[in-house]
Amino acid sequence: MPTLVLVRHGQSVWNLENRFTGWTDVGLTPQGEAEARAAAKLLADGGYDFDACLTSVLSRAVKTLDLVLEGMDRLWLPVTKNWRLNERHYGALQGLNKAEMAAQYGEEQVFVWRRSYDTPPPALTVDDARFPGRDRRYAALADAELPRCESLKDTVARVLPFWHDVMAPALSGGSRLLVAAHGNSIRALVKYFDAVSDTAISEVNIPTGVPLVYELADDLRPVRHYYLGDPEAVAKSMAAVAAQGKAG
Amino acid sequence: MPTLVLVRHGQSVWNLENRFTGWTDVGLTPQGEAEARAAAKLLADGGYDFDACLTSVLSRAVKTLDLVLEGMDRLWLPVTKNWRLNERHYGALQGLNKAEMAAQYGEEQVFVWRRSYDTPPPALTVDDARFPGRDRRYAALADAELPRCESLKDTVARVLPFWHDVMAPALSGGSRLLVAAHGNSIRALVKYFDAVSDTAISEVNIPTGVPLVYELADDLRPVRHYYLGDPEAVAKSMAAVAAQGKAG
Repeated sequence: MPTLVLVRHGQSVWNLENRFTGWTDVGLTPQGEAEARAAAKLLADGGYDFDACLTSVLSRAVKTLDLVLEGMDRLWLPVTKNWRLNERHYGALQGLNKAEMAAQYGEEQVFVWRRSYDTPPPALTVDDARFPGRDRRYAALADAELPRCESLKDTVARVLPFWHDVMAPALSGGSRLLVAAHGNSIRALVKYFDAVSDTAISEVNIPTGVPLVYELADDLRPVRHYYLGDPEAVAKSMAAVAAQGKAG
Repeated sequence: MPTLVLVRHGQSVWNLENRFTGWTDVGLTPQGEAEARAAAKLLADGGYDFDACLTSVLSRAVKTLDLVLEGMDRLWLPVTKNWRLNERHYGALQGLNKAEMAAQYGEEQVFVWRRSYDTPPPALTVDDARFPGRDRRYAALADAELPRCESLKDTVARVLPFWHDVMAPALSGGSRLLVAAHGNSIRALVKYFDAVSDTAISEVNIPTGVPLVYELADDLRPVRHYYLGDPEAVAKSMAAVAAQGKAG
């Protein structure tokens, strides 16, 4: 049975500071590193193993994957890094504090920016230092592929080609895949796998550092999915993610 | 000008214990991790940058590369892991203490095992737990490719196809390459680049964790090469490598 495990990176410096991060390349906090090591232990204790690994080109996801592989004694596994697994691009909100934005613009507006399916946040201009066209890791992207901002719908649109072109063929070929990615690139995949509606996806929160296992049929339709580890800790982590847009 | 930087992994647990390691997958010591971080600083301070990275399928080299990339803020660079960059396979000597072997068989015999160009160490049998055919990371290798032991000549023979098929085309295509590998896979490359004789290569010792820079002409002939960092520290590290086979 094809198996896919998704792990959202552990706490980053800007998760801790409650700032919109998007494509900003911030590192993990010590807690984030500990979360990645705990994910490795859950996977190893659960008897999971992999043939190939996929991650974004953002350090917090790569580092999470490195720590998981080290903890599983699987540093030798092949790793593919691709921008299509990046976090949603938060446009001009990147770097701003979520609670401060909520105090200034209202929690409702912040909820729309964070969880509306198709409303993008304010866009960057191309002369903004944060525009990804200025970062050589994105040098191979066509101009139309370089986001100024993204709604989750935009993120889905650029994640799915990676699913169809890379992940699905690998799974069909018998590879067990481990993906270390981000809250919104994982939500994009979950939305697709489980045909979550545009409305219902707003309530889906991915906890950090908890392996999400998808068991797939041979045609890659999801049979079931579940988080590894203590269900109470998972619920607590999901609630913490959901609460990030509060003013208080 | 095509640039290639080679880094031998930092001190491993078995370097510290002075044991023949070969393909045994031991980790780095804290000192080995510190050496990798120091290599990152030398590279960053020297203004070096890369487009792609290559390493072996042994954890101590992968971890060294991960630490170098983290220290250079380049975790997003693509990494290719290939068994052809592995350490020389030390056959039945793997796990044995170099000084104990020197006391038992004489320093001359240990020097032959360590530094003879074409005399392999005693071979493993295929039913030995250390035979690489039992390790799934080598599952794609043909039977003839799976070593029971290797002389440096054997190592050269399996490293060079990787140079010709992967490294040389990448360098010719304009990629700046960073390679994290092992004492003998690096010696194999150095022997080829600089046409070192079968005799003279026995005196070439690669220090751990020190970036070795090769500047290449457009046809990839080496123009010059040098180690980064304090020359005295480099000389001391080379002498320590050379002294490992003493009865002590």
